[in-house]
Order: sequence, then C-alpha cells, then structure tokens
Amino acid sequence: MKNKVGREIPEEFLQNGVEVFQGQYYRDNYEYTKAAPTVRAYVKPDRNKLQNSLRETILALNLKDGMTLSFHHHFRNGDYICAQVMEIIHELGIKNLFICASSLGKAQANLVPMLEDGTITGISTSGVRDEIGRAISEGKLAQPAWIRSHGGRVRAIETGEIKIDVAFIGAASCDVYGNASGKGGKSECGVLSYADVDAKYADQVVVITDNVVPGVNMPASIKGIDVDYVVKVDQVGDPAKIAGGAIRMTKDPRELKMAAYCAKVVAATQWFKDGFSFQTGAGGASLAVTQFLRSYMDEANIKMGWGMGGITEPMVDMLHQGYIRALLDDQAFDIPAVKSVHSDPTHYEISCSEYANPLNKGAYVNYLDYVILGALEIDTNFNVNVVQGSDGLIQGAPGGHPDTAAGAKCTIIVAPLLRSRLATVRRELTSVTTPGESVDVLVTDYGIAVNPRRQDILQQLQKTDLPLCSIEELVETAEKICGRPEPIKFTDKVVALVEYRDGTLIDVIRQVKK
Amino acid sequence: MKNKVGREIPEEFLQNGVEVFQGQYYRDNYEYTKAAPTVRAYVKPDRNKLQNSLRETILALNLKDGMTLSFHHHFRNGDYICAQVMEIIHELGIKNLFICASSLGKAQANLVPMLEDGTITGISTSGVRDEIGRAISEGKLAQPAWIRSHGGRVRAIETGEIKIDVAFIGAASCDVYGNASGKGGKSECGVLSYADVDAKYADQVVVITDNVVPGVNMPASIKGIDVDYVVKVDQVGDPAKIAGGAIRMTKDPRELKMAAYCAKVVAATQWFKDGFSFQTGAGGASLAVTQFLRSYMDEANIKMGWGMGGITEPMVDMLHQGYIRALLDDQAFDIPAVKSVHSDPTHYEISCSEYANPLNKGAYVNYLDYVILGALEIDTNFNVNVVQGSDGLIQGAPGGHPDTAAGAKCTIIVAPLLRSRLATVRRELTSVTTPGESVDVLVTDYGIAVNPRRQDILQQLQKTDLPLCSIEELVETAEKICGRPEPIKFTDKVVALVEYRDGTLIDVIRQVKK
Repeated sequence: MKNKVGREIPEEFLQNGVEVFQGQYYRDNYEYTKAAPTVRAYVKPDRNKLQNSLRETILALNLKDGMTLSFHHHFRNGDYICAQVMEIIHELGIKNLFICASSLGKAQANLVPMLEDGTITGISTSGVRDEIGRAISEGKLAQPAWIRSHGGRVRAIETGEIKIDVAFIGAASCDVYGNASGKGGKSECGVLSYADVDAKYADQVVVITDNVVPGVNMPASIKGIDVDYVVKVDQVGDPAKIAGGAIRMTKDPRELKMAAYCAKVVAATQWFKDGFSFQTGAGGASLAVTQFLRSYMDEANIKMGWGMGGITEPMVDMLHQGYIRALLDDQAFDIPAVKSVHSDPTHYEISCSEYANPLNKGAYVNYLDYVILGALEIDTNFNVNVVQGSDGLIQGAPGGHPDTAAGAKCTIIVAPLLRSRLATVRRELTSVTTPGESVDVLVTDYGIAVNPRRQDILQQLQKTDLPLCSIEELVETAEKICGRPEPIKFTDKVVALVEYRDGTLIDVIRQVKK
Repeated sequence: MKNKVGREIPEEFLQNGVEVFQGQYYRDNYEYTKAAPTVRAYVKPDRNKLQNSLRETILALNLKDGMTLSFHHHFRNGDYICAQVMEIIHELGIKNLFICASSLGKAQANLVPMLEDGTITGISTSGVRDEIGRAISEGKLAQPAWIRSHGGRVRAIETGEIKIDVAFIGAASCDVYGNASGKGGKSECGVLSYADVDAKYADQVVVITDNVVPGVNMPASIKGIDVDYVVKVDQVGDPAKIAGGAIRMTKDPRELKMAAYCAKVVAATQWFKDGFSFQTGAGGASLAVTQFLRSYMDEANIKMGWGMGGITEPMVDMLHQGYIRALLDDQAFDIPAVKSVHSDPTHYEISCSEYANPLNKGAYVNYLDYVILGALEIDTNFNVNVVQGSDGLIQGAPGGHPDTAAGAKCTIIVAPLLRSRLATVRRELTSVTTPGESVDVLVTDYGIAVNPRRQDILQQLQKTDLPLCSIEELVETAEKICGRPEPIKFTDKVVALVEYRDGTLIDVIRQVKK
C-alpha cells in the first residue's frame, strides 16, 4: 500500500493497528489510554535496593525468552552499560529478546553476534550506526528493526505498542533509594532525558552506576519510587567518549556560507522577535548558525526565549552571554553542556516526552519557532532521508528530526548540494525519514529553495538578497555535476521499518544486494 | 467483620475488592498494573491552551453527572480554587459529582449546600474540617466520605480505585504551555506535591493561576505535557491564609517538657547517628522538638541526612544552619518554608507519591528513622485516632500520620495525657486512624510508654532518666483525673470510611446521635 509520500509499504507490516503514513498531523486529537507498568509494591520499610553485582541483579530479574529490555544512549560512544548487561544475558542463554534502545552505535558492537545466534531478534532504536547498523542492513536480525524518532519512541512506550519488561538505566550517580542523575562522579553525561519514559513504564527498573552517593541524590532525573534495583559497577562508560570535549566550530567556507544563509533566513522571517524559540543540530553548518545569529539579535535588540535540543557549547555560550533566557536540554553533546546543565539555573533538563512525544498534550517541539536540521538526501517534494546512506546502508538516525520538523513554525534543512560526488538533492530518496510537508526551507551552498506550501516564508525571503531558487533548479544543478545516481539494488527482504513519529510507517528499508 | 484492630466493618462496604485492615504490611509485594489516563493528543503545533475565563474552560470540559473532580490543598485556608470552580459547576446544574480532594477545610465551606442538593454525592479527602467536616458528620453527604491518608490518596489514584475525570490544579504561576509551579506572583504556596498524581492520572487537567508568566516556567512541578488548559483568574487565594507568617515557637511549659522528652528519646535510640532522617509535625510540642534536638546533635557531632514533611521555619533554620543536609518538602506550612524551597538548592520539592505512597517501589517514609506525630486519642494498644473528636465530630485529618508511622523505624506520638478534662489516653478510641503496631513510643506530660512490641527501643530508653511507664499506668492516671468518658451515642448511619493507607478499611465513622 502506497503512503502519503508515495512509498510502498508491504501489507505484511500493516497489522495490529499499524497504518501507512497519512500526513504529519493525521493523529491530532487521537484519544488513547496510556499504558502503565506492573508494579511490585514495597510496603515494608527500608528494603535494600542495592545489589552486590550486575550478575546477581540480572538473576534476580527472572528474565525469560522473548522479553523486552531497554537502554538509553546518554553515554553515547562511551557506553559500557548495554554491552555489560547483554554479555551476562548472553551467557545465561536467554533468547529471542527485543531491545528497545533510544539509540545504538559503536558502543554496542558486541551485540552483533547476539543478532546472529538469536539472543536478540528484534530492535527498536533511533540510531543504527556502525557495526550494528551494518549487521541490520545485511539482514542479520530476525525481524525488521524499528527505526523510531526520539518522540516516536516515547509514544510507542506510552501507548503500549512497546511493553518494556526491564529497563537498564545507566547513571552518573544514584543513591540507595534509586534516585539517579546524569551528574556526579567520573562518568557525567549531563541528563537522563531518554530514560525517563523507561523508568515510568517498565515493569522492572535497574539503575546501574559507578557512583553510589550518600544521602539523597537530588534533584533526580529518575525517581527512586520507580526503581527496583540499584547496582554498582566499576565503570558505566568511558568518560572520554561520553561527552566529547568542546566541539570545534567549523572553518569550512562552504559550511560557513550555508550557516550565514540559515541565520539570514531566521532573521528575515516573522517569528524572529523577542522570546523566539530555536533548535539547531550539532553538525558543522547547523552549529555555526549560532555565531551568525548573534549579530542579527544584537541588531534587532532581541533575546531568544528558549533554545532546545541536544545542547552544545555554542548554545551554552549564548545562554551565559544573555542571548538566551533558558535552555531545554534532552541531551548533552559536549562537556560544556554537561557542566552547564548542572550549574546554570536557567539550563533545564527535560524528558524526551516533554521534548518531542507527538501523542502527549503538547511537547516543546510544538512550540518551536525555528529548527535547523541536516539531511543525507532531500527530494524535490522536500522529503528528507537522514537514516540510510545513498549506498543503501543504514548509517544515520531520525533522532528528533521528524519531531522538530513537524512542530516548528519554520523548519530549515541545511545541506550541501553534493557530498563527494553524490547528490544530496535528488529526484528519489533511498528512503524517507521526514515528510516534505513538514520541511519549509532548504539551504544549500548552491542556493535556497522554499517549499511551495510556504508562500508566507517565500514572500518574506524575497525581501532579502538571499539566493532563492526552486528545488527543481537545485536538483538539475546537482544532476549536471554528478549525473543521475545509479539505482541501488536491493533484495526483497525488509530489514528495517522507518516509523513516522505518530506510529504510521513512512518507509521500509530493504537488504542491499551484494 | 472485625478487622485486625478489632473494629467492626459492615459487610456492605466490603465490596469491589475492599478488604478489612489486616496489618500494616499486609500488601507488601502486592503486584498490580497502574492505572493510566485517557489522553487527547496535541499533535498539531502551537495549540493555545490559554483560556479566556474559568467559565469557558469548564464548559469546554464537557462535564457530566457522576464525574470525579480533583483539587489540592496547597493554598490551605486561603484557597479560592475549589470554591470558584464548584460555584460555576453548581450553576450549571451538574449533579452526583465525586470530589477527590487532598484535603478540605474552612476554604471549602461553600460546598455544604452542594452536598445538600446532590451536586456532590461523594468525597475522598484527608482533612474534613470545619463546616464541611460538620456537614459530613451530620450525614449530609449521600455516600460515606472516604478519609484517606496522603499516601493512601496517591495509591487510590495510581491503582485506579479512583479515576479522576478532571483535575483542577491551582498554581502560583504557569506558562502558556501549562508548566505550573508553587513559586511566583502574589499567591505563592511553595510546592504542588499533592497535585502531581492528579496531573499524571486525570483525563483532563486544568491549571488555574493568577500569574501567567512569559517564557518557560521552569522548574515546573506540573509538566505542560500533562495539561489541557491554562486559565487565569483574578486571584487563586488569599495570600495571608495560604502560608501563614512564621509559626511562633510554643512557650507552654507542658509542651516544652514533652518536646524535651521526645528529643531525648530520639537521641537515646540507635538510629540517632550521622545522616539520620527525621520528620516532625507542625503542632506545638512536635515543632519544639527541633530546638532540643540541636544540642544533642552538637554533642554527638552529627548532622541530619534529610528532614521531610510539611516543612516549617524551625526545620528551615536547621537546614540553613547546617544541621540538616537536605529537606524533602511535600507541603510548605509557612512563609519561611515557601521562601526556602524556592531559593535553597538543598531544599527539594517531592511529590506525594515519593513522600508516602505505600504501593510504589519505596516512598521516602519507608526510609525514615524518626517521625514525631500527634494524636487526638490513643488507646492501650497504641492505636491512634487523629480524625474524629472525642465528641464524635470529624475534625482532623490522617495526613501523613499512618504513612510515616508505618515507614519510620521509630514512631513517636507526642500528646498531653488530658485536653480540657478529656483523656487523650483511653481504653477505647472513638475511631482508629493509625494501627498501634506502627506506633512505638508515646510521650505524654505524665510519662513515656513504649509499645511492648519494641523491646529494642525500651532497652535503649531504660538507660536514660526518662520517666518510663506502661500505657496502662497512663490510662489509669487519666481515669483517676477525669473518670471514664461517657460513651458517645451514634446512629446506625455510616458517614465516613476510614481507609488505611493500603486501601483496607481500618474503621467506619457513624453519625452522632443528637
């Protein structure tokens, strides 16, 4: 069955209420009863949650074949939690597990043999990168992986589409009551935003930390009342890889040019006024937008009301310099962000449901004025792919891309027209992540195209000296330079389902033919 | 059917899974699936939650006969929210409503005619005082009122025993996204701990404030993602009655004597060591304990790890003087507490579920070392009544009494032996609120009795010069002075059910015979 962005979704995946994508606001006003965990009550006082070892804890959980286990990715490439837990479970010989991760990457390379031997047969994740991305692309997972946006993952858990049996939550610190935080100790990750929904909806919740603190560990991102067990390990992660040092600002002239265009698009549109809200990504051009934005803000004599997202040093600097009144942080990308969220009283941790869940009563993405996002590919209908490489391998992550694009009043994609002789702007996407109806402006190094649906924005930009063009002109330029791309050959086997944030299917990804 | 404290519970109330009280830890390890609200999703961005008037908001809610509405009591005797909302609903002619309040008192006197005309036919509350207490005592409510502890209310909502259709949450401040707080504006109440469960479990949530703030209202006690409507009214309450000025420390020699005894009991028992946890009430003797505790703490060179509860100035002073490392606050009793929770980074707001819910994974009450509580009456089995006057009228509130008593390692009741020629220590209670098995020490002005179940505590106190005696001796002394009390005459009509925190019935209250 073809969906609203023209992608064919095989009928076999349209079961148990799963529908094809039907528009970004298809589920507005959708009514549902939230899922809820099964709780074992601790009426007796002074129960000791603190376990002696991770192995003992895992034995106490009474794991069974077919269960769903969850992990978060706040320790990023430095995460030791998922690897440690799964090695023990692997040894125990439990099979047919479903892993509900907020993201998977290099740190989870050890899962690949577990895909091959049937320990893990299902996965839900945002990022599917590196070894695990390659394994899924190659069809090593028994069932197709669910690729979900950050908001979509929360939605799937809150609606009950995913039922988590056990959440394993790595934390930089925890007290004996189970109050856990991204602050303190040798493995600070800043926030625990993605794990919030896991703690609230999983039947059993384990906090794993290398830093058990005395007294009450407040303020806590994860509340002790939701936690069954606390266990101390030697190390939750590799600090050097958890939060990288400060990200260096790009000096690439092409990226700087695009960043300058983006800032001008923002400054020339109607939502650029005191109190505006803004999110930008951590890519070179996206990040560089902030430095150009400052002068426009000075000129207009306005402040940003709030900045949101994965937070990086440039946003932290703007907060501390008074350009931004508040930062809403669902992921700390670097050490300055980690330090700031623990010390600046106007830098707030928010849960991922607050950030991006499409089916609550109004996530912050709904109130974004501007978001600046990247793209691996974008087609002439402004549909964007951020998941699959043009070689067919899964190598990206929707992250908050579809969520912020749907919510923001002005969604700007910034991407170079070409990347090492591959066109970014194309007639056909390898797969669709974010529908074009939620994308408003495309900024490239060859010109700026406005989605024809947004005549309001077009009119405002026509008053500037920005190099406006149509997206057809961009695709023609790209084709002139690198020709039309050879279609990649796929087998019939579907290896991943690309879910839109509301639970509908926006695309499927097939195994690359070797 | 007789329950474990010997009270007769009529069979008609033992339906739909309601059982008689069977011991304080009867439901330990009880497994249940939490309730969850029905949510109407706000997928479309930028929905305006801000309403024009309270009346319009109430009309938008589509209220129906028989619904359950909830209110919190953080504005205490100054609350205008419940009165304003219910006046409008009364005018609309909606009937047969169930009011799930965290407490009711003087500020809700206008509900009395609504009990009489069938607008309100059921009530769940902790406190039932003043006019509304009298009306219920006189049998004016169609169904018996449910008297619940603070922890019991959260439990009843989280298990689904109470399903809230609409929560009306008064707040000192709120932003347009629905993020609400007890801070800011002319009506500060400090915290919104009791409303936390309402926001999370009600189908529709309305925040009512007199202070809509620009930007993001963070940190927020109530999250915008749980809020449907925000409405501004002229005044949420009478600031003079919301948080009283500083409470004056008692100079009553009898109260001071009992306070000194309590402090010595604390200092002489094994849990008095660095990092101990402690809660005390706002009554004269309870409050005065803090001033005697200081010198014992100096002597032992120890600090309190955390203090909890309804927080008052003496506890705030101890925090600021370094005697306490952290305060956990579920209710701000006076202006110093309100100011401190908004300014001291070691004074934390906790939800009422974190405070006292018996059926989560371990509320803070479970980790209390000491709690000092009052009593209207206590019997020779150490059962306590804090709800019903010895004249038969409902005039108190369980509050956190049964919750903290069950959780604390050492539960101390402080009460004068006699109050204006009525004995506090008696052979028979007017009704039971807290079972004697959870009460360890009774401190009176005539001596100190230790529950025979606690030989460990008795042995420790025997090493002091405290005037120990048996509770039988105390009751005999009381009877010598004021004789045996005349039994009060009641009709057969049950006007209130006294629920133990775990959902079982510990007693029923009947209508007083005139």
